[in-house]
Amino acid sequence: MAPEWCRLTAMDENSALSRLRALQIETPSWGYGNSGTRFHVYPWPGAARTVQERIADAALVHRLTGCCPTVALHIPWDAVDDYPALKRYAEEHGVGIGAINPNLFGSDEYRLGSICHPDADVRARAVEHCRECIQIAEQVGSPVISLWLADGTNYPGQDDLRDRHARLLEGLQEVYASLPAGMRLLVEYKFFEPGFYSTDLPDWGTAALACRRLGSQAQVLVDTGHHPQGTNVEQIVAVLLAEELLGGFHFNNRKYADDDLIVGSIDPFELFRIMREIARGDTGDVAFMIDQSHNIEGKIDAMIQSVINIQTAYAKALLVDEARLAGAQAEGDVLGAHRIVLAAFETDVRPLLARLRRELGVDEDPVGAFRAGGFAEALAHERGTASVESAYERL
Amino acid sequence: MAPEWCRLTAMDENSALSRLRALQIETPSWGYGNSGTRFHVYPWPGAARTVQERIADAALVHRLTGCCPTVALHIPWDAVDDYPALKRYAEEHGVGIGAINPNLFGSDEYRLGSICHPDADVRARAVEHCRECIQIAEQVGSPVISLWLADGTNYPGQDDLRDRHARLLEGLQEVYASLPAGMRLLVEYKFFEPGFYSTDLPDWGTAALACRRLGSQAQVLVDTGHHPQGTNVEQIVAVLLAEELLGGFHFNNRKYADDDLIVGSIDPFELFRIMREIARGDTGDVAFMIDQSHNIEGKIDAMIQSVINIQTAYAKALLVDEARLAGAQAEGDVLGAHRIVLAAFETDVRPLLARLRRELGVDEDPVGAFRAGGFAEALAHERGTASVESAYERL
Amino acid sequence: MAPEWCRLTAMDENSALSRLRALQIETPSWGYGNSGTRFHVYPWPGAARTVQERIADAALVHRLTGCCPTVALHIPWDAVDDYPALKRYAEEHGVGIGAINPNLFGSDEYRLGSICHPDADVRARAVEHCRECIQIAEQVGSPVISLWLADGTNYPGQDDLRDRHARLLEGLQEVYASLPAGMRLLVEYKFFEPGFYSTDLPDWGTAALACRRLGSQAQVLVDTGHHPQGTNVEQIVAVLLAEELLGGFHFNNRKYADDDLIVGSIDPFELFRIMREIARGDTGDVAFMIDQSHNIEGKIDAMIQSVINIQTAYAKALLVDEARLAGAQAEGDVLGAHRIVLAAFETDVRPLLARLRRELGVDEDPVGAFRAGGFAEALAHERGTASVESAYERL
Amino acid sequence: MAPEWCRLTAMDENSALSRLRALQIETPSWGYGNSGTRFHVYPWPGAARTVQERIADAALVHRLTGCCPTVALHIPWDAVDDYPALKRYAEEHGVGIGAINPNLFGSDEYRLGSICHPDADVRARAVEHCRECIQIAEQVGSPVISLWLADGTNYPGQDDLRDRHARLLEGLQEVYASLPAGMRLLVEYKFFEPGFYSTDLPDWGTAALACRRLGSQAQVLVDTGHHPQGTNVEQIVAVLLAEELLGGFHFNNRKYADDDLIVGSIDPFELFRIMREIARGDTGDVAFMIDQSHNIEGKIDAMIQSVINIQTAYAKALLVDEARLAGAQAEGDVLGAHRIVLAAFETDVRPLLARLRRELGVDEDPVGAFRAGGFAEALAHERGTASVESAYERL
Repeated sequence: MAPEWCRLTAMDENSALSRLRALQIETPSWGYGNSGTRFHVYPWPGAARTVQERIADAALVHRLTGCCPTVALHIPWDAVDDYPALKRYAEEHGVGIGAINPNLFGSDEYRLGSICHPDADVRARAVEHCRECIQIAEQVGSPVISLWLADGTNYPGQDDLRDRHARLLEGLQEVYASLPAGMRLLVEYKFFEPGFYSTDLPDWGTAALACRRLGSQAQVLVDTGHHPQGTNVEQIVAVLLAEELLGGFHFNNRKYADDDLIVGSIDPFELFRIMREIARGDTGDVAFMIDQSHNIEGKIDAMIQSVINIQTAYAKALLVDEARLAGAQAEGDVLGAHRIVLAAFETDVRPLLARLRRELGVDEDPVGAFRAGGFAEALAHERGTASVESAYERL
Repeated sequence: MAPEWCRLTAMDENSALSRLRALQIETPSWGYGNSGTRFHVYPWPGAARTVQERIADAALVHRLTGCCPTVALHIPWDAVDDYPALKRYAEEHGVGIGAINPNLFGSDEYRLGSICHPDADVRARAVEHCRECIQIAEQVGSPVISLWLADGTNYPGQDDLRDRHARLLEGLQEVYASLPAGMRLLVEYKFFEPGFYSTDLPDWGTAALACRRLGSQAQVLVDTGHHPQGTNVEQIVAVLLAEELLGGFHFNNRKYADDDLIVGSIDPFELFRIMREIARGDTGDVAFMIDQSHNIEGKIDAMIQSVINIQTAYAKALLVDEARLAGAQAEGDVLGAHRIVLAAFETDVRPLLARLRRELGVDEDPVGAFRAGGFAEALAHERGTASVESAYERL
Repeated sequence: MAPEWCRLTAMDENSALSRLRALQIETPSWGYGNSGTRFHVYPWPGAARTVQERIADAALVHRLTGCCPTVALHIPWDAVDDYPALKRYAEEHGVGIGAINPNLFGSDEYRLGSICHPDADVRARAVEHCRECIQIAEQVGSPVISLWLADGTNYPGQDDLRDRHARLLEGLQEVYASLPAGMRLLVEYKFFEPGFYSTDLPDWGTAALACRRLGSQAQVLVDTGHHPQGTNVEQIVAVLLAEELLGGFHFNNRKYADDDLIVGSIDPFELFRIMREIARGDTGDVAFMIDQSHNIEGKIDAMIQSVINIQTAYAKALLVDEARLAGAQAEGDVLGAHRIVLAAFETDVRPLLARLRRELGVDEDPVGAFRAGGFAEALAHERGTASVESAYERL
Repeated sequence: MAPEWCRLTAMDENSALSRLRALQIETPSWGYGNSGTRFHVYPWPGAARTVQERIADAALVHRLTGCCPTVALHIPWDAVDDYPALKRYAEEHGVGIGAINPNLFGSDEYRLGSICHPDADVRARAVEHCRECIQIAEQVGSPVISLWLADGTNYPGQDDLRDRHARLLEGLQEVYASLPAGMRLLVEYKFFEPGFYSTDLPDWGTAALACRRLGSQAQVLVDTGHHPQGTNVEQIVAVLLAEELLGGFHFNNRKYADDDLIVGSIDPFELFRIMREIARGDTGDVAFMIDQSHNIEGKIDAMIQSVINIQTAYAKALLVDEARLAGAQAEGDVLGAHRIVLAAFETDVRPLLARLRRELGVDEDPVGAFRAGGFAEALAHERGTASVESAYERL
């Protein structure tokens, strides 16, 4: 029997449940296909091969979790001829189409960048691709363009840093000018990779200054793995919220670089602290999206685990005794305030989430349900295993 | 009511309790006095001013937690004329004296190092100081010399790296030669600081090679905050255990550098993973010591919190279902194996630790007991608040 | 004889010389006194003990280098009763007083922050101290307030991150409101330390957003050691220049954290790349200030070395063949463009700087001149060696 | 005209030249083909497509630099049916075959590791592949097996860290047992990637302990990009030399992770400091190998640039006034010692290297010679441009 000081009250539980029910998480189509590192891509039996299969997998995740009603697309990876048909296909499977992600690195012409490229023709084609994505978003009913630029340089002197900054702002402005009312442009930043010497959008500061210049439909996208070691990510979230600049998340986890691991698998306490800033309220339109890469494990159950881990962190964050915490903070009781936060983190919220899932009509343990349901075997049988060559093997 | 899959069995609990009862943690005398950063030392009311007060505070921590029966000393900070009397003083307060820590940085002559100093006279005095510490250890009945060298350089070319390595080995050998049978020399490493360009014992590899050369009474001391960002500390622990080279820990936590924060306060999952390597068994004589610096909070309750956090991590680590885990690992079930570890971490062990504490005859919440007991107020009244100047203020 | 492709033309030299003559560097009063790490302060014979001695040392550096006409002060370390007299004292020694640096960490009341402190009284006193510094600046004729806040927290939950951000902006606005026309407020950021969990002004993005809100008299101060590992500092400089937000530098160097080593001593190529952004022109009012800590070496010659290293980096930066570089960049010739920058870096500019110094009327080798001139010995004789206790020794 | 204190004496020059002539650098076959990041592989016109083309490119680099007489192979990327014929092919082109690199990551079976894999069958096949590489080395007359293991895990709990360490040692012992007399096994370590949570050979300490256990034919291979941020790489080199454990280098450069950029392009001062440890003498059989990845630039001229940069760093290192340096170090003259090292680094060694190249019968500027010689155009014409898909595009 738990001692009194570590038990939840019914009021805590009910209040947390109503907030948890409102949490919707978007999964990425590209998380369902084979992926890997520059060294090799280890194929997974049954991994999705087409946009339809990827949407079907996302729909399965929604069916098992009850909280993932949309799927993000990457263009041209997920490009089709008939977008209204794709929208209907998704809806028939029970999901909607979420953020549209332009791809500005997968074509040979982007060797030196896209909208920051030294050649004006390449820049124009990059902007044009973003405009096509905006049209696709309109056709599929998506309210969000999620823009990550792989632009950067590998060597000092390769290009002029100030010129590239000017091109960045100019390109973003051209894209922004094409946004219809009600559609948001989420501007993602990343500390490094694939540019190794410089990255044109390396930090939230650059993204924030750019968004301020663009207008209120532009906001910053925080990928939790895109920061230097030791960064206080929850503080960035707090400041962006305070400045009304937080547009959404790409959730994943990492130990060193941009590892794209299962959300919360390396540092669940950091995830909890990030979700605490969300739990404080007033988060408006923040988009909760997952962006990860399942290199050595099955994709669908790992995606479900990420969803669970976000829910877990959020549930714990909702249990922080905010009134007592505010008191301890005001008194400067450093340890006392810290302990109040820690107490919420130490609480086992699995029973609470089990209750949430029963109410949502899904299994208490969605990963267990996936594994027990024979889904993986059926998909492997249906789709087979595709062997994939990697960059290094193309020598 | 928790779902079946997240409840502890009685067998799990009893087995974990017997292991938890065996966990003894040593607190450091220097954690009870005022400390700070290079910028300022913020004094704390009632902070200990003498070795006797520091021992009394450690004894209080033992009285409140039931698991901290020894206190580490730092010489000359804790130097006295009569060590047998100091030993009796400690015993009368209910604690023994643990590791003796030679100080090889607090004297002006160590500007360029101690046993790695370019001047042979300084090196000889450093070795002599270690020998005195060995004698003190014999007088107070301590089985451990815990040696951290602040040796390093600030500028490329300042000294010869290979020569310094040779001096390091020579000095350690001289100290080792003076060790009586049964006493261990724990060799600590640190990535950087106070040497900013090079540190003579920068990593576990250097410490391990040195200990191998010295003999079986020399082992490596792992300070959890002494690694570069992104280091997998639990793997170092695992390898040192496998190589029979793990001598002990200096526990603390950090976000960026060697921050010396409360154990587990920044990354409790890392602490859990470290304790899992301990929970796997065969840890022999490993010394569990705390080394931290309470710059802005009270010292005694923060020390208790560190003790609690180590117990929490260890309790969770003991709950890992090792048989199922070994099965999942053997099958290559990446997510399945990870989930078994995660399930233990998510378990709320506060009830289990409450039971442990009842059995040890201490309060279920030792920090609460300290705060409710009027100890802080009494100490502040008795000792007052000492204002302290810092390095920067000495301009 | 150098091959043709690595020889300077007379035109290159003359053009570089005229730019070099315009480069003025400010040295910090606090760099002339004893300083150290949290572990110990190793005293240096003859280190300055008073503001007058610190100004005299700065004046000596100017006399030997010909390019350091001002000295920055730290208040209250350099506080005096009669500032007009201090201004005259400096002028009599041949230097002016540069940036005034408020100190918001050296008083016990700042344990939990200054303008971000949870207590409104402390915040008010912090603002008041900044106002006093503004008055001092007016009295000594200084056009710059250089503001570094040590504000931060050590533990998750200790304080509310969003509230602290609001207090930060409010406090800065109150200070800004007191600025007379023509005086600039330089807002410094720092990644971590002394706050270990969060820092209220942790990055250039926070500083830039704050300055934008304050107005055109507020600009960002870049301390080259205040970034996470792997940061592209020259890109931050480039972006701040592009956004007209670069106020000045605190130059120093580091290997891991904020080591405050001699400028350029660890990574001279980074310093060169930073100075290349300056050499590109349009830098307006940028203040070139040194901020370092000479823990184990003499202070005056180390300061001179830092000045030399900045000049060296700038001289090399001025030799970049910008026309050829722009061509290679436009063509996307990655290696070709990099090689043009590298060629400038590989050029030995010591002869060029020797010519500059002859024209300035100082010795070709100012460090050699200091060492040969008997200055160190005279100062040691006059001032003696002050032994200093450090934080750790105050146990 | 350079001032006296920065001119080289003839004696310095002649002595440095004789050491420089002895420096031989091995280039990697895999550096001549297309490579990229996980995001995309940007193809390069004329990039080598077969082992014969890769050897031909290495031979061209040797012809242009005069100091790259061998080429390293990667098996199975460079596998052929007739190795004696491959050896003859190389010799006809003027080069020999250097280190043989087993590939233990490019096959689907290595998803969970090679010699550390949980499955004994996979481990056995990994060992067998190494044995085949030993046989190839014998057939082509190579004295070195260069072994990098991509083994690691992505998630806590995925596998047992101590079991993996045991498998690592066992596998290495099996490989070592197959080494013929006179052949060396170079054991490479890497901090992270492609394993993101743990890497089985993460640091030089693990490699050194393993080599000590294996025997004197096993030595450590230092890849300059395989360390955590802030690591003092030259100190690792110094310690490995002191312990007679340094087997060789994989040279490249990086800003953040294992970027595999042109040697010396990001931090030439670090390269210089590394080469200074080499210049101190007694380096025996150390293998100087390049390992890099030219993602966005031409491969051959970038490889030549890396060769030049190693020569540049070594030439500067040879110019350090070791006698004066030893004196300054012995006196504890921190700044004086540092300045002696810095003076060597600031020397423009391009004239010296021009003389070396004239004596070797190659162009003073080998990159210029490559670019002027029409080689790139001829290769592009002959080989064309191969488009390459990347992992991410295989969704």
